[in-house]
Amino acid sequence: MTNDLAILTLLHDDLLRVEQKIRNIGSEAYGPLAEAFLNLLGSGGKRLRPALALAAHRLFADRSSDKAIAVAAAVETLHNATLVHDDLIDGALIRRGSITLNAIWSKGATVLAGDYLFARSAGFAAETENVRVVQLFAETLRIICDGELRQLFSSRQWQQPKENYYSRIFAKTASLFAAASRSGAILGDAPAGQEQALYDYGYHLGMAFQIVDDILDYTGDERLLGKPVGGDLRQGIVTLPFFYFLQSRADPAAIIAMLEAGNKEGAGIAEVVTMIRASGAIQQAGQEARSFAAQAQADLSTLPPGVYRQALHDLAEFVVARHT
Amino acid sequence: MTNDLAILTLLHDDLLRVEQKIRNIGSEAYGPLAEAFLNLLGSGGKRLRPALALAAHRLFADRSSDKAIAVAAAVETLHNATLVHDDLIDGALIRRGSITLNAIWSKGATVLAGDYLFARSAGFAAETENVRVVQLFAETLRIICDGELRQLFSSRQWQQPKENYYSRIFAKTASLFAAASRSGAILGDAPAGQEQALYDYGYHLGMAFQIVDDILDYTGDERLLGKPVGGDLRQGIVTLPFFYFLQSRADPAAIIAMLEAGNKEGAGIAEVVTMIRASGAIQQAGQEARSFAAQAQADLSTLPPGVYRQALHDLAEFVVARHT
Repeated sequence: MTNDLAILTLLHDDLLRVEQKIRNIGSEAYGPLAEAFLNLLGSGGKRLRPALALAAHRLFADRSSDKAIAVAAAVETLHNATLVHDDLIDGALIRRGSITLNAIWSKGATVLAGDYLFARSAGFAAETENVRVVQLFAETLRIICDGELRQLFSSRQWQQPKENYYSRIFAKTASLFAAASRSGAILGDAPAGQEQALYDYGYHLGMAFQIVDDILDYTGDERLLGKPVGGDLRQGIVTLPFFYFLQSRADPAAIIAMLEAGNKEGAGIAEVVTMIRASGAIQQAGQEARSFAAQAQADLSTLPPGVYRQALHDLAEFVVARHT
Repeated sequence: MTNDLAILTLLHDDLLRVEQKIRNIGSEAYGPLAEAFLNLLGSGGKRLRPALALAAHRLFADRSSDKAIAVAAAVETLHNATLVHDDLIDGALIRRGSITLNAIWSKGATVLAGDYLFARSAGFAAETENVRVVQLFAETLRIICDGELRQLFSSRQWQQPKENYYSRIFAKTASLFAAASRSGAILGDAPAGQEQALYDYGYHLGMAFQIVDDILDYTGDERLLGKPVGGDLRQGIVTLPFFYFLQSRADPAAIIAMLEAGNKEGAGIAEVVTMIRASGAIQQAGQEARSFAAQAQADLSTLPPGVYRQALHDLAEFVVARHT
């Protein structure tokens, strides 16, 4: 993502305040942790979630209050905490082109580093002094963990109901997007209906975002991804392109037999990945992502017009443009 | 601990409400998790931390409000969340005579199960709708994680300053005891001075409690502990008896050489453990635990007299009586 995305340009100064707040976690932390946190938290990512919280807040406020900055930092820190534990669970050694904590530290230190980030995230949320924001945070963390557990326990269940997929990506991604935009609205004292509209916007945007991520796992450039395509399927995680693909086949049992026969390096899985890449399933999933993004844009209709609403509108466009 | 401890008898009905709330985590959780959580959360322990929160609250209230029950559940759930991750980090297979999650589940599922409990703990804390309680919780979680990280990174540093030990046991144990009693006071609308007195009480009680635990690691009955004595030293964790022991020796360098030579099963460490058991260091550490307990009792002097104050007084007695 380049910085000429309107939402990031508009919020540039406020996002620097968020950045500073997050990087302070590094400076305040215990010695060996400090440098690792600075690397981890500084390695960027898109800062999309804090931008979402700040833009939602700015629909109702002239400037970003300290509490809005705190909630944006809380969202991003919570996201990073879950990434640290995810990398441990997946055994990932590289994330966003940087070496993960998991690659350089013991299992124990990585677990605790993630826990530490959860604690700081809760601390930032508590800085808002807003009970509803805090409750929303706690509930979102619960949903995220519950979703991760479901994903883990449903691994290699090739024929699970498609409904499971939507629950999983809500838990994994859309719940935090929705919490971010709703938190911004709460701190901006938005009327109840508009707060709900921002929750819905975050939800639909998050669903679109994750579907695109899941498509990129099949269609991405291996050199850019830094890993072989089809990583999800290799891990036994079934995503939207797979559902559409299996549904389109006259011989689903034969496909499943190929997957069952393959191990992570197995030719069976690689072959299915190639079939999915060449199939219409990618287009179908892309269509669905665009539909979620369009719903997100529709959610904005009752919100105060202006540059922030326009930026949120364009963000929905951008999120689905990533895969084309 | 038997149930005739006054604080547990007085709070029996309220502790059942806490118990029910905690066990609901099991019933609401995702399938495979439900049973594991019920076993984990039902396997008891002393429920000392929730009793502390409730007793502190009862000093200022006729009955335990739903919010007091919620904070007691939050304290106990946070404690259990840290135990799940601790067991993973230590590779412990048994805790309180029960098999740990770590022993039956994958590393990934255990990390997530701990995270789930953190989330529920935050949710219970948020149910109090009290910003100060929530902030205290977030900060306590931060302190606990920071302490665990310090412990991990200071492993096998045989000659660290004794001050490190006090910081570690504050982080590991006393911080949550103090947060429990202070939270009860906050929810009971205690005057600021009495709230501080209850924080101090929890702090001193927690310090005494952990020193006794650390003594028992040397002096306990192996059959009751379910593990060899000296487990801390085998893990490279130096506790109060070790500090006193080393200080009493004319030849600390020789002791350290023995420890360095030993591995977990090594004769060197076992020999040092035997020497510590037979030394005056155990008595010295016990004396210090009694001194912390006496300070806890002194902290109670300005609090409203009655059965709850008496129960807190007796609890301090009980905590140090465990090791004799």
